[in-house]
Amino acid sequence: MKPRSVFITISKDITLNIFGYKVRNVNKMKLFRTLISWDNALKTVLAHAKQTEKETVHFDESVDRILAEDIQSPIDSPPFDRAAMDGYAIKGQNSFGATPNNTVLLKRTELAGESAKDVEICEGGYLPIQTGQPMPKGSNAVVMLEYTKESATKLEIYKPVTPGKNVSLKGEDVKKGERVLQEGKVLRAHDLGMLAALGKTRVKVHKRMKVGIFSTGDELSDPKNLAETEKKIADVNSYVLEALVKKIANPYRIGIFRDDYEKIKNAITTSLTLYDALLISGGSSVGKKDFIADAVGDLGVLLFHGVAIRPGEPTGFGIINKKPVFVLPGYPVATISAFEMLVRPFLYAAHGVKEDSRKLFAVTRKKIPSAVGRSDFVRVKLVCSEDEFYANPIRVSGSGILSSMTKSDGFVIIAENREGMEEGEKVEVSVWV
Amino acid sequence: MKPRSVFITISKDITLNIFGYKVRNVNKMKLFRTLISWDNALKTVLAHAKQTEKETVHFDESVDRILAEDIQSPIDSPPFDRAAMDGYAIKGQNSFGATPNNTVLLKRTELAGESAKDVEICEGGYLPIQTGQPMPKGSNAVVMLEYTKESATKLEIYKPVTPGKNVSLKGEDVKKGERVLQEGKVLRAHDLGMLAALGKTRVKVHKRMKVGIFSTGDELSDPKNLAETEKKIADVNSYVLEALVKKIANPYRIGIFRDDYEKIKNAITTSLTLYDALLISGGSSVGKKDFIADAVGDLGVLLFHGVAIRPGEPTGFGIINKKPVFVLPGYPVATISAFEMLVRPFLYAAHGVKEDSRKLFAVTRKKIPSAVGRSDFVRVKLVCSEDEFYANPIRVSGSGILSSMTKSDGFVIIAENREGMEEGEKVEVSVWV
Repeated sequence: MKPRSVFITISKDITLNIFGYKVRNVNKMKLFRTLISWDNALKTVLAHAKQTEKETVHFDESVDRILAEDIQSPIDSPPFDRAAMDGYAIKGQNSFGATPNNTVLLKRTELAGESAKDVEICEGGYLPIQTGQPMPKGSNAVVMLEYTKESATKLEIYKPVTPGKNVSLKGEDVKKGERVLQEGKVLRAHDLGMLAALGKTRVKVHKRMKVGIFSTGDELSDPKNLAETEKKIADVNSYVLEALVKKIANPYRIGIFRDDYEKIKNAITTSLTLYDALLISGGSSVGKKDFIADAVGDLGVLLFHGVAIRPGEPTGFGIINKKPVFVLPGYPVATISAFEMLVRPFLYAAHGVKEDSRKLFAVTRKKIPSAVGRSDFVRVKLVCSEDEFYANPIRVSGSGILSSMTKSDGFVIIAENREGMEEGEKVEVSVWV
Repeated sequence: MKPRSVFITISKDITLNIFGYKVRNVNKMKLFRTLISWDNALKTVLAHAKQTEKETVHFDESVDRILAEDIQSPIDSPPFDRAAMDGYAIKGQNSFGATPNNTVLLKRTELAGESAKDVEICEGGYLPIQTGQPMPKGSNAVVMLEYTKESATKLEIYKPVTPGKNVSLKGEDVKKGERVLQEGKVLRAHDLGMLAALGKTRVKVHKRMKVGIFSTGDELSDPKNLAETEKKIADVNSYVLEALVKKIANPYRIGIFRDDYEKIKNAITTSLTLYDALLISGGSSVGKKDFIADAVGDLGVLLFHGVAIRPGEPTGFGIINKKPVFVLPGYPVATISAFEMLVRPFLYAAHGVKEDSRKLFAVTRKKIPSAVGRSDFVRVKLVCSEDEFYANPIRVSGSGILSSMTKSDGFVIIAENREGMEEGEKVEVSVWV
């Protein structure tokens, strides 16, 4: 797949990398002349999402990790027929016809050895049993305490049970050799339980990628050091990206770099010796100080810069020393949009995630306008009540509106071939995680 | 609210604690004679969910924590009118009437000081501007690069912009004093971003409760130590509970205790000196070795034991030294059900969670049968395709079927007054987290 993007560097050296598109040099500013479609941008990043290695971890450290092997059960579970209720193990057919007025009477089977497992229940016999205990030989049903009365070694039964009733059969939950968990599954609490139950105490998972994160911009300052009087802008992106990455991979927040071309190039080179991938935000628009895309192109190959998504248009992606580098917008909202539309799919692919569990369907409450030729990232609030399940688009006036994120429950993407969504249309919502 | 449960201890001491209900002593087994409704069980545990204390943390350590204060913005955001696009700051009205054939010509305003902020754009003037920069005095719109041509100090404009176009107005995102985040919100990446943007680098969150977890049962063995030949059952519950609790509070897995009444009592007493709450699983059914409920009643007050939920019926809850103790079933599936139906709501309430973001609505694909008088915990698989969004109930034959969990995406609760769900009915699904 060949990216259809244009990358133009008009710096000191007047390097022009133009893939067959007409460009116009206005006031030494770079221009996004042609935007790559979201679809193509996605294909490009996914083509470079090499799966991370596998590592073996203890099952109880595997929550939220992505399984890197299929798990076949080494055993039948349950390993034997067992009682599913407290009561009495009987031959079900012996209880047929029992009613409160016409009870069936059974005789307690005498225990030969110590355990009920060693005896056989013969015609007309019974033994008390607790949930989870193995069914004695010859028995095939458990009659619940409620429907019985025991006196000494006699059991009166008020209600019949069919053979098999209240019994968990061997292999009923999982059969030996059955695949219980599939490669690519994000492991949750009950999956750990399954691993424990089957005695699979060590599992292969995908190694978490080391992702370096930094922001660039003379105007930025770390919010932790930002004095109230200072006229700088808080660096939001590196913190947001750190929090987003943390759920999938291992983030390393490197800090803020000034708009200094050589320093940024050095920062990229050094970071790539330490991390598997880089997310760099700020300065990826078409202003004069757009050093990041230039630097990525200088150090490696810039595969695209400028994607037909909104917000997030000035997003770029390149490869340096075989390592992926994302160039993300300066605006936090645009960076979050670009993360969800391109970086998350990349990280999911690299970690072998098979299913995106964040997706659900709802009905739009309002018309959502969108331009053809651009994929829109629309923040929505889910409205859940007894009669309704709506996705309510949040009105925004610009890509700087961070409150559109904090007020929302998730987002809807409007494909570039769509002129918006109609009221009442069914839409796929990805909820924030 | 008075619990309607019955607690009967028929041990060595033949202690009978019966709240006005007829009981029948069969073969020295305890019986759940009357089950408390889920609704009442929930009210009971919530009545004892004392909110945890507040603590102040750095904003970047607050992901997934529950906000314990309302956040009002200390500033307008953006703090000044700023460019929302790269281009030229102009008086919008000066561009009126511009067309490609009849361009408007503006003259570059000369910079008096170093910065564009210090100058005023007068009638017919313009200045280049980048996204995010403050709008120069006198300007009210940004004309995008695409619709202009600059040569030396002259700017030709091809397309008019209305005043306000491509400008982010001061306070447009958030107004000073506006509440941006509400107490009880589970903080996500973009909320951190908002905190960073507003300079709120320290926030109050609810302290994570310390939850002690142990399993009981002679038949149990730690899956990590379980030899293949051993005829013991793997302790699944303490690991599952640890993983479930971890997302909300701090779990402490204590281990496995044998079915020894005194040892269990000691374990409870000791644990309660260390932790804020206890989850004890196993031995909570009506078998002969049901020591936990007895022990809770002995050491404190057992508020209920036996809830009309399925699975999870043998769930109990009590208070010892003002600390909550949950008595959970031995079967992992029943324990997960009891966790989701009672423990999670308790933990959410104790941590001040206001909204359960796991909920969505879907349509049932199959009829789901359920008995009146009992709340059913039905595992469902979500089926998402372009035309469908279904919740497909997973068929189970008993509460021991752990694979019903691992195959599902979440669960539906069928209220006790409902005789199941019809095919095509809208149901509320809680997805696994």
